[in-house]
Amino acid sequence: MTRRALVDGILFTDQYQLTMSQIYFRMGLHEKEAQFEHYFRRYPDYGSHQAGFCVAAGLDSLLAWMEASHVTDADIEALRSQVDGTGRRIFDEDFLSWLRNNGSFDCLSLRSMPEGRIVHANAPFTIVTGPLAMAQILETSLLNHLNFETLIATKAARVSQASRGRPVLEFGLRRSAGRGGNAAARGALIGGAAASSNVGMSHVMGVQPKGTHAHSMVQVFMSLGEGELGAFRAYADAYPDDCLLLVDTIDTLASGIPNAITVFDELSAKGHKPVGIRLDSGDLAYLAIQAAAQLNDAGYPDTTIVLSSSLDELVIFQILSQIDQEAPRYGIDPIRLVGRLVMGVGSKLATSDGQPYLDGVYKLMALRGSGEESWNPAIKVSETPAKTPNPGDKDVVRVYDERGRSTADVMVEKGRSLDQGDSLELRHPIQPHSRRILLRTEISEIEPLLVDVMVGGRRVEDAPDLTEISERRVRDIDRLDPGVRRLVNPHRYHVSLTPGLWELKQRLVAQARASIS
Amino acid sequence: MTRRALVDGILFTDQYQLTMSQIYFRMGLHEKEAQFEHYFRRYPDYGSHQAGFCVAAGLDSLLAWMEASHVTDADIEALRSQVDGTGRRIFDEDFLSWLRNNGSFDCLSLRSMPEGRIVHANAPFTIVTGPLAMAQILETSLLNHLNFETLIATKAARVSQASRGRPVLEFGLRRSAGRGGNAAARGALIGGAAASSNVGMSHVMGVQPKGTHAHSMVQVFMSLGEGELGAFRAYADAYPDDCLLLVDTIDTLASGIPNAITVFDELSAKGHKPVGIRLDSGDLAYLAIQAAAQLNDAGYPDTTIVLSSSLDELVIFQILSQIDQEAPRYGIDPIRLVGRLVMGVGSKLATSDGQPYLDGVYKLMALRGSGEESWNPAIKVSETPAKTPNPGDKDVVRVYDERGRSTADVMVEKGRSLDQGDSLELRHPIQPHSRRILLRTEISEIEPLLVDVMVGGRRVEDAPDLTEISERRVRDIDRLDPGVRRLVNPHRYHVSLTPGLWELKQRLVAQARASIS
Repeated sequence: MTRRALVDGILFTDQYQLTMSQIYFRMGLHEKEAQFEHYFRRYPDYGSHQAGFCVAAGLDSLLAWMEASHVTDADIEALRSQVDGTGRRIFDEDFLSWLRNNGSFDCLSLRSMPEGRIVHANAPFTIVTGPLAMAQILETSLLNHLNFETLIATKAARVSQASRGRPVLEFGLRRSAGRGGNAAARGALIGGAAASSNVGMSHVMGVQPKGTHAHSMVQVFMSLGEGELGAFRAYADAYPDDCLLLVDTIDTLASGIPNAITVFDELSAKGHKPVGIRLDSGDLAYLAIQAAAQLNDAGYPDTTIVLSSSLDELVIFQILSQIDQEAPRYGIDPIRLVGRLVMGVGSKLATSDGQPYLDGVYKLMALRGSGEESWNPAIKVSETPAKTPNPGDKDVVRVYDERGRSTADVMVEKGRSLDQGDSLELRHPIQPHSRRILLRTEISEIEPLLVDVMVGGRRVEDAPDLTEISERRVRDIDRLDPGVRRLVNPHRYHVSLTPGLWELKQRLVAQARASIS
Repeated sequence: MTRRALVDGILFTDQYQLTMSQIYFRMGLHEKEAQFEHYFRRYPDYGSHQAGFCVAAGLDSLLAWMEASHVTDADIEALRSQVDGTGRRIFDEDFLSWLRNNGSFDCLSLRSMPEGRIVHANAPFTIVTGPLAMAQILETSLLNHLNFETLIATKAARVSQASRGRPVLEFGLRRSAGRGGNAAARGALIGGAAASSNVGMSHVMGVQPKGTHAHSMVQVFMSLGEGELGAFRAYADAYPDDCLLLVDTIDTLASGIPNAITVFDELSAKGHKPVGIRLDSGDLAYLAIQAAAQLNDAGYPDTTIVLSSSLDELVIFQILSQIDQEAPRYGIDPIRLVGRLVMGVGSKLATSDGQPYLDGVYKLMALRGSGEESWNPAIKVSETPAKTPNPGDKDVVRVYDERGRSTADVMVEKGRSLDQGDSLELRHPIQPHSRRILLRTEISEIEPLLVDVMVGGRRVEDAPDLTEISERRVRDIDRLDPGVRRLVNPHRYHVSLTPGLWELKQRLVAQARASIS
């Protein structure tokens, strides 16, 4: 238990957050008010396909962790044991004493994108304000929570899109990243999965967990001499109104489906409605067509056909295209067949195969002394221009065009309204000559995006339920340009600066360069 | 807290494990003794490079979870709330009552590969024996624990190999998969990382966590008008014997390294030994050479140079090759330069970029009634021959050739010795005509691989320490053929069956096919 407390509490962080905090403490800077901004620099690129948007997720997990976490005696004891190469202790007693008494996130406030909303690369996702030392210690866990769930929610949204709105079931726990399998299930549900096989996390999220049976169950009955049919009968007997049978343990078309039909007939005779079958190997498009033909002939034209086995958005897209082309040859209506499919997506969803991490960063944007009104902007200059942050105390708004589609996310000076004037000038964050003018008549709405979610370490509102989160996602995806939603090589969404923030950035970069002695 | 208990306890499993267990309970099969085998089918394939071996990890985490986990009232309450589409409860009271009283892993025994040992595709990695229902419920968590840590340990071993034995630091927590970041740190340490930035997990593993400082610290001092030099001085003042400075916040060669040298001179004057610098952007090979030149000229020929920024085994291999070629042009000895490097590897190690999951499976191999001596082998037939398991009650041994190199892992009937006879016949698990004869004179050792690790739900031995695990890894990697260790397109290691097990498999497959009505 001590072990779990150590790895899941405040020490779920990187060493350098603590060594830096000790320096701030020694210099009397630890309570200086800081503003950190979290954003991600690149959309996931899966190699053969790419995301043009992300779905925000992980905030509730982060806030729950922040509320629950504070420095314990065991944490202090661990830190006290650290020594450098010469045997000298890394952390002094006065810092440890301060940390024991102040090591919670009660001092921090957060503005963030609500879960389920579409977020874009380089636009502010979360802004953290509070005393420098604790805001610094938060970095690792904030990034961990938001990066990963957002990555998985994004993948789930893509898988759902490829599935043409058919239900997606998240099945990845067995090959997910340790306890990260729980965050994967949560992210998948936020991104659009209809359900998950993960029992614990489904209950936490208020969703009925889903599953059928494994090949092993059929093997048990085969080993007892009762065969696949015996296994299916036992399943139907236990779950007469939830009977979904895995048909590929021996031979899908010659054994599995005929046996399933026998059991469906027995269930129907008793007044139950069979649910369907699951295909887990072979050519899923071909087998789905043949399974549909056998089931239709037997009088089950509406039973579900669950597909699983190394699925992701591109594989699903290909399978459905193949069904569109091939089904008519076998006298099967492809629209009707696709309409009875359900996708079981495991490893490739739960690990975001192709791009298993989101490169979210957490950058110092501004500092101020206690009692000071205005913020002093901070800068970091990178030899890679895309890595230079956009400094200052700012907000982000989403601009919708005359069709009601989102057309740009714009960083704007905090408190400034963009509602005045005949037009809006947008500056590219990096390229000096790239600017865009939007006429007022081309704009249907300007929407502030960041919401106060935590003040003084306490949530502003209770955690939203999954229905509310899903509604946000559906509404935001609906307002994306179809080009931005494209699964492969999507159109680039505009994330821009106001001219004022652009000039601030140029000035600070020039100052930093000038400081080189 | 209820939330965390629900997601981390017994319900950290897939729904179908529970629905199948209820069927076994209803049929009176739940206490029938079962033997499940865990193995992985394919080595990680990262796209442009591939693994030829894996490093076993995750067992201690699994055993700790098994010892700590038992069904709670909260678990039962969650399961009781589940209903099917017609509103009927999924789990009956009699099953829930049995589960409440018997829902622990005290009934199970495990044999497994010890952590740190080399494991191969399709060879038994873990064998679980015990009552069918609880052995089935264990599946998901067993796979989750062993798949992921083994995946990361394998990646860490490859990164270490590419680094020519120089220290590798695991830095990936911020972009790892939620709490899976802890398992990633553990896997990395087992696979060969010298240290991790993850504070909590480092303490659990008994390793000093590592880190320097972030760009944000330099930004803070810049924002206060004290510049990069002020930041470096503050760092050196706090950690005079552990002073490692990040030099790329403004300009690596024009500002960062000259400022670091100034601070190193100040430290040296006070009798301290500066540790080194970290490069986190730009052309790391070029910058390492230039940094070495500046540091050498200033009288610091041995200070460490830490490289970080999107590193993985191939990138490191390329950087070191580039240093080999380019360093002499600048008057720098490449061997000496490589000898002062340390690799900081983050996201790509902690997520096993390129192949973010290991396809470990857990297959029913045999069943027997209570009191029965012999096992009744179970089979599953797949249309993909590689997916048909190798049935029976068995063991696995490693055969070493006359050079002392491991040459094959062989599945053998349980209890049978391979020490007799003039030669050993090895059968390929799938291809009928592929066989290999090893003469007794070609064999230096036959080593049983699986070890009893849990009996009746209790560990047989205390968890080994990291030193012991690392010794196993070093010894096993040393005995691999260099071709199997190659980073790209490695030579295929032999995993074979005895002729007896081969014939058993053929017989069972034929019986299963014959059973198709």
